[in-house]
Amino acid sequence: MEIKVVRQIMEWNEDCHKELQKILNDNNVLMLNVMGSPGAGKTSFIINLIKLLREENLNVGVIEGDIAGKVDAEKIAAMDIPVVQLNTDGACHIEAMSIKNIIPEFNLKHIDVLIVENIGNLVCPAEFDIGEHLKIALLSVPEGDDKVEKYPLMFTRADALLITKYDMKEYFNFNQDKVIQEAKSMNKDINIFKINSMKGEGMQEFFDWLKKHINHK
Amino acid sequence: MEIKVVRQIMEWNEDCHKELQKILNDNNVLMLNVMGSPGAGKTSFIINLIKLLREENLNVGVIEGDIAGKVDAEKIAAMDIPVVQLNTDGACHIEAMSIKNIIPEFNLKHIDVLIVENIGNLVCPAEFDIGEHLKIALLSVPEGDDKVEKYPLMFTRADALLITKYDMKEYFNFNQDKVIQEAKSMNKDINIFKINSMKGEGMQEFFDWLKKHINHK
Repeated sequence: MEIKVVRQIMEWNEDCHKELQKILNDNNVLMLNVMGSPGAGKTSFIINLIKLLREENLNVGVIEGDIAGKVDAEKIAAMDIPVVQLNTDGACHIEAMSIKNIIPEFNLKHIDVLIVENIGNLVCPAEFDIGEHLKIALLSVPEGDDKVEKYPLMFTRADALLITKYDMKEYFNFNQDKVIQEAKSMNKDINIFKINSMKGEGMQEFFDWLKKHINHK
Repeated sequence: MEIKVVRQIMEWNEDCHKELQKILNDNNVLMLNVMGSPGAGKTSFIINLIKLLREENLNVGVIEGDIAGKVDAEKIAAMDIPVVQLNTDGACHIEAMSIKNIIPEFNLKHIDVLIVENIGNLVCPAEFDIGEHLKIALLSVPEGDDKVEKYPLMFTRADALLITKYDMKEYFNFNQDKVIQEAKSMNKDINIFKINSMKGEGMQEFFDWLKKHINHK
């Protein structure tokens, strides 16, 4: 009984995901699903990414997923970027239907990249496609180098792995070779970048990769 | 439909939780549910706690919850402590039924404290009682000082909040007063401790509080 219901939810989510991708493709919008643990540096990364996108005259929209509150949405709104706060009211991940309901809030004709910040969680968000073209998984150095092995689905499904708070490497016993090797062994096509969101370091390399996926309007 | 099933799971879980508590109480076993984000320092905290419990001649058992792998259980087993690895196979939290199935693996007559390390996740584990007497929530300094506000259920339900990796405070913009104030405002009885698991600092204060709950056999 339980499994049946879960399957129904997943199938329904998959339909919704495909519908969303069609809408986004028709409007030449690239959607990113930004995922990672609480405190991995998702919002800081998004703020840095917005700055780089603006320098190239690319237009951005943001959906901020949070269980409660609007701390992150306020940070984005302060940059004069269209942003919608999606409160899941306790739920541990975002589903495609929630994004579909929010999409009409954006003028897709004037957006090149739509960034979704998922709930801070290394587990459940990895299971649900939400209309995105690229899954961006963040793993921060303070979390430790055993997290790829312990939370494999996230890193198996991610298009890019961003090792964040990289400047903290000297303070933590973080073996980056182990992380890279384990991520590549479960996902040979994963693109790995080392960044320090607080100072914007390493962002350019990631952005050079991302640009290949953007359709400039 | 979906809500109905969730309720059934919650009710079933609650029955199981009560049944487990009775078994544990009959055997004078205190169970701890240790929760926090991936990399909050749960395993290091448990290792330090085991050392303190041993110094007082208290017997420990550990259940290591992980989505996959047995990295943490191996660390505990190396200390010659009875440990069971519980792999959730993708699930984002532990439920009471899983603990109930594992309990026969332990000789409860020779255990004073049973420690459960939950899945690294600040969201879902907070929803499910698993037979524990005390919920211990860890929040590490690198995660940031906005996490109580953003993940309220965990801190509303916790008996103790451990601010971990406290020695990293100077490297991160972490406002501990904000964290303490927000946690107290949603849970006035919460006990807050600052610890550095890597060096064992701050553990004694936590242990003095914990000891009040242990029935020495």
